Amino acid sequence: MADSPIPSAGPVDAALIDDLVAASRILAHHRVLDAWGHVSIRHPANPERYLLSRARAPALVSAEDIMEFDLDSNPVDQRGRRMFLERFIHGQAYRARPDVNAVVHSHSPTMIPFSVTGEPMKAISHIASFMVKEVPVWEIRDVGITQGLLVTNNTQGHSLAKTLGDGPVALMRGHGNLVVAPDIRRVVHRALYTEVNAQQLATALSFRRPITFVAPDESQDPKRLDDSWEVWKSEAMKGA
Amino acid sequence: MADSPIPSAGPVDAALIDDLVAASRILAHHRVLDAWGHVSIRHPANPERYLLSRARAPALVSAEDIMEFDLDSNPVDQRGRRMFLERFIHGQAYRARPDVNAVVHSHSPTMIPFSVTGEPMKAISHIASFMVKEVPVWEIRDVGITQGLLVTNNTQGHSLAKTLGDGPVALMRGHGNLVVAPDIRRVVHRALYTEVNAQQLATALSFRRPITFVAPDESQDPKRLDDSWEVWKSEAMKGA
Amino acid sequence: MADSPIPSAGPVDAALIDDLVAASRILAHHRVLDAWGHVSIRHPANPERYLLSRARAPALVSAEDIMEFDLDSNPVDQRGRRMFLERFIHGQAYRARPDVNAVVHSHSPTMIPFSVTGEPMKAISHIASFMVKEVPVWEIRDVGITQGLLVTNNTQGHSLAKTLGDGPVALMRGHGNLVVAPDIRRVVHRALYTEVNAQQLATALSFRRPITFVAPDESQDPKRLDDSWEVWKSEAMKGA
Amino acid sequence: MADSPIPSAGPVDAALIDDLVAASRILAHHRVLDAWGHVSIRHPANPERYLLSRARAPALVSAEDIMEFDLDSNPVDQRGRRMFLERFIHGQAYRARPDVNAVVHSHSPTMIPFSVTGEPMKAISHIASFMVKEVPVWEIRDVGITQGLLVTNNTQGHSLAKTLGDGPVALMRGHGNLVVAPDIRRVVHRALYTEVNAQQLATALSFRRPITFVAPDESQDPKRLDDSWEVWKSEAMKGA
Repeated sequence: MADSPIPSAGPVDAALIDDLVAASRILAHHRVLDAWGHVSIRHPANPERYLLSRARAPALVSAEDIMEFDLDSNPVDQRGRRMFLERFIHGQAYRARPDVNAVVHSHSPTMIPFSVTGEPMKAISHIASFMVKEVPVWEIRDVGITQGLLVTNNTQGHSLAKTLGDGPVALMRGHGNLVVAPDIRRVVHRALYTEVNAQQLATALSFRRPITFVAPDESQDPKRLDDSWEVWKSEAMKGA
Repeated sequence: MADSPIPSAGPVDAALIDDLVAASRILAHHRVLDAWGHVSIRHPANPERYLLSRARAPALVSAEDIMEFDLDSNPVDQRGRRMFLERFIHGQAYRARPDVNAVVHSHSPTMIPFSVTGEPMKAISHIASFMVKEVPVWEIRDVGITQGLLVTNNTQGHSLAKTLGDGPVALMRGHGNLVVAPDIRRVVHRALYTEVNAQQLATALSFRRPITFVAPDESQDPKRLDDSWEVWKSEAMKGA
Repeated sequence: MADSPIPSAGPVDAALIDDLVAASRILAHHRVLDAWGHVSIRHPANPERYLLSRARAPALVSAEDIMEFDLDSNPVDQRGRRMFLERFIHGQAYRARPDVNAVVHSHSPTMIPFSVTGEPMKAISHIASFMVKEVPVWEIRDVGITQGLLVTNNTQGHSLAKTLGDGPVALMRGHGNLVVAPDIRRVVHRALYTEVNAQQLATALSFRRPITFVAPDESQDPKRLDDSWEVWKSEAMKGA
Repeated sequence: MADSPIPSAGPVDAALIDDLVAASRILAHHRVLDAWGHVSIRHPANPERYLLSRARAPALVSAEDIMEFDLDSNPVDQRGRRMFLERFIHGQAYRARPDVNAVVHSHSPTMIPFSVTGEPMKAISHIASFMVKEVPVWEIRDVGITQGLLVTNNTQGHSLAKTLGDGPVALMRGHGNLVVAPDIRRVVHRALYTEVNAQQLATALSFRRPITFVAPDESQDPKRLDDSWEVWKSEAMKGA
């Protein structure tokens, strides 16, 4: 586009866009994403760009909805499309974390109670062992009062990325969470098992007994994600 | 109708009726409405009229089922159709609240436990921040003993509207709740997230730790509801 | 059948059998019945006979599966069909309760915890106000030790009916429950809302506050059940 | 296969393979198996062989995916197919238990909280009375630290089988469980009701009252499993 001040990093392999669309639908199918969450990937050709859907419910996202942004979350070529108000979560996570190539922001239902109580969230099962360290909780009031608790600028996004540190997940008080990973399939795995672990930990806590969390020397990322991806995608894309 | 003592406020735009039907089915699809709840809108041409389905399960309501009522909940043109016994909830809410144009009465499952325990119901998440103030609980016994706890006349409806005050939600002890909003899409959002917040708050309470509720200066109505409406409607109307 | 010692009470109106089949599938659809529960009706022409499916999962029951039994639970015309071991629950309930014309035996999932703890089960919501009195718990050991805790003879069935007394529901310790009503639609309503009330009461109990149960002077059977029946049947019979 | 060092025990009746496939899909349908669990059977012609799918999500397993293994979990004829890393759970269970002909390894969601708290898991309902004795918990650290908590060799599989003892179920700390039975239909029943009992026991525990567990003299395996198998299979194979 002649009038765009930000050059595009160029077209992206259709298979990767296909995975990004599937990711959105998988997380909606499993009710980790409600009507407003979002999933993005870093542009494979330029680390200063990321790809995210126009503002649309995750269960309905298609390849045509994907837009390109720079790390300040300016659109490369907006063409009048509505954008997610909270895209700054993504841009700042990519800026702060060169190792991250995929980002999810969700209102994962069972994570909210952990975000407002200080109850520590950590992995109790091997599938969630990416959360072997306690998940930090980000307090948006620390960067000023925000009606709606939404992350709508780079200052807030930067502050959230700082709370995330070098971990895979951050809770956002009274709002939801941020999940990052080196690739799109792994970020889906993590977003999903963040919710599953929260459900199981809530049950374990109800027993009022000491809990054995996954120990640091037991933590391991799953080595292959093809089997889960195959079934999650086939279920989520039915009738799409 | 020549023999009707109450004049109609005239026909309503089909798109608005379509939204009213969708609202009923969306809330049934999300199990906020069971077989007996109901959704209504104020007549756009006359604030003294409202529109509500004939007595029918919300999941089955169609445009043909919509009837017109005055604010005493008399039908404009009954034509032998069975009416909801509890329509007085709607009429009195519209009378008491000129700012309200849409009303839901539900047996939202996780709200019932809050209605019978005095456990305060307030927003813990930004999506439910319309409940930033504690939701009042209406005690039907205060206007006399009622077998079945049903609101079947204007006296009871008026008393409930008084408990509602200027808020968006009132709990009805041992029965369900009343949700009001300036428009049909917003009332669906509120009815749905009343239930979601109740589920999340019940989990948060189970941790037995102090809870950080959404603060008054953090409350904000969502600015646009198009994205959620698009996906909720498409899911609820499948196969309709 | 010439060799049958028990005369049949004659054919039953197809619409009533249709309701019995729908009842079975509705309760399976709502997961009140698992793979083994059962629903029966008293024969409309002879109070000494009742109608119950051959041994078959409730979700699969059809009109052709319905058999006739006397109140000792002998089959009128077995024709080699396998019978439910626990049919004695039905026969003895009909014998003890002339006012009862429909019976459900289920393993309603959230009733089991109440059956093994002594936690009182009573209505907290008007839809469940048929349980305004505390539901009695039947202890099968009182009539002898039974491997499998199953009701497989008239002595056990009689003892259970005695615990039921003149109420609508009895819990069976470590097993499930028995629900009775004057007609098939009402027994479905009761079986379903027994489970819903159990779920809501479990949540209310988790708040550790005094609970306001439905008061005796507030109890009322729903006056019409046509609306709920219409939607429950349409959902349960989809694809049947 | 000329170059296979392990001779095959020969072809298996298609109906039995069909049951094995159905078992996998039933347990996925009921969410006892997630994307990674597995079900196997002992080879009917040779107790030193067992049959298990190639590495694939249980919801997608077909007859073509079934492979043959010896009890050290070496493949009889791998033909390049990826194998489950944790197949050693199966081989060692068959070696240790001549009475066992079917094995399930799952991450059954409500069993995980029991595995990390020491809260005793025992049957509270007759359908789960196979767990009349407290389910043992296996601690993988007892045989050395394992990143990912996975059972990936015969030493670990043997240790788990030892913890299982002569029972039907063992919990695996922070991971899931192992269920064994004399036949494929019974192992499905057990895996499913292990999860159901865990859910019901968690609710019962929340009441903070003494719990009456199923007593040893009340325990009984269900005598027939045809009715539940018919409905579970018909539901799980829909659209397959």
